[in-house]
Amino acid sequence: MPPAVRLVLASASPQRRAILEQLGVAFTVVPSDVEELTAGDPHEVAMENARRKAAAVPGDPVLGVDTLVALDGRIYGKPRDEAQARATLGVLAGRTHQVVSGVAVSPPMRTAVAVTDVTFRDLDGAWIDWYVGLGEWRGRAGGYAIQGRGAALVREIRGDYLNVVGLPVPTLLDLLPFLLQPADRGAPLR
Amino acid sequence: MPPAVRLVLASASPQRRAILEQLGVAFTVVPSDVEELTAGDPHEVAMENARRKAAAVPGDPVLGVDTLVALDGRIYGKPRDEAQARATLGVLAGRTHQVVSGVAVSPPMRTAVAVTDVTFRDLDGAWIDWYVGLGEWRGRAGGYAIQGRGAALVREIRGDYLNVVGLPVPTLLDLLPFLLQPADRGAPLR
Repeated sequence: MPPAVRLVLASASPQRRAILEQLGVAFTVVPSDVEELTAGDPHEVAMENARRKAAAVPGDPVLGVDTLVALDGRIYGKPRDEAQARATLGVLAGRTHQVVSGVAVSPPMRTAVAVTDVTFRDLDGAWIDWYVGLGEWRGRAGGYAIQGRGAALVREIRGDYLNVVGLPVPTLLDLLPFLLQPADRGAPLR
Repeated sequence: MPPAVRLVLASASPQRRAILEQLGVAFTVVPSDVEELTAGDPHEVAMENARRKAAAVPGDPVLGVDTLVALDGRIYGKPRDEAQARATLGVLAGRTHQVVSGVAVSPPMRTAVAVTDVTFRDLDGAWIDWYVGLGEWRGRAGGYAIQGRGAALVREIRGDYLNVVGLPVPTLLDLLPFLLQPADRGAPLR
């Protein structure tokens, strides 16, 4: 029986770790320290950042991921402060935005992009005050966490849910088809 | 400041408890013991079962929920055994099914239905063997748990994710708009 694949996750994100644990993937964490793009075409930014992360860390295979929120072609990153969190959530309220993840696996370097449409409920000022007051916006692209209280902000999604949390699983399985069943398949990863 | 609402959840489902905890809702659990419909129109079955659960338990407000999987108008319940789990997953593979939840809140009795479309990846026999072998199909409508390893079976969804886990949050908030912010709103629940 071939040994299980040991993936190297080039990210310090607890959400990404939790998703790999949910899937039962054997992995280690080696956070990358790369300069990330913050502006430009959302798909290109997410893919290039993922590529930089995967290229910066030794291992085989290495997984780099970058997730961002986009609306009308503009990228919404992690809010600086409460005022910016409030402003971002105000823009997203009642509308459909895109959560875009770049995924990169190397070597050899392979990349893909996943997009999930997220439609927020109609949120008045009291809802936004409630959510911002929880502090959950800190460190979150777009200022919310769908896997936390932020679930109460969302009306519906279209696409992969775990992409919104931070790691698009179907996209990962497209790039690494044998990630979950190396023994059953009797084939090495690549 | 009015006291927080204390919801009574008429369900023994650990998934529903986890969702209410994720939202920060104060609640108690009083499982209902009612006879459930298992055949008929999926929307009507889910709504009627939810109504029966909410009506069977004392409290104010009481929440009853029933979640089922439907494809081509047929209801897929909890598989009896591995063979039935394998057969159900084989039917769902590569196709889009509906997860239908009835939600009932009382008194007075108010009901709603939530539907999420779930599209499975193209799964060959090896994938189905892998998943069935995990045992996660046990006790799950449709034979899978999207919040577990079953995430690897799903290509995309359209609608509310937590409905697929077992409790449609936007629908619950439509029925109980003040569930999360009774103090901020300065209004009683009803």
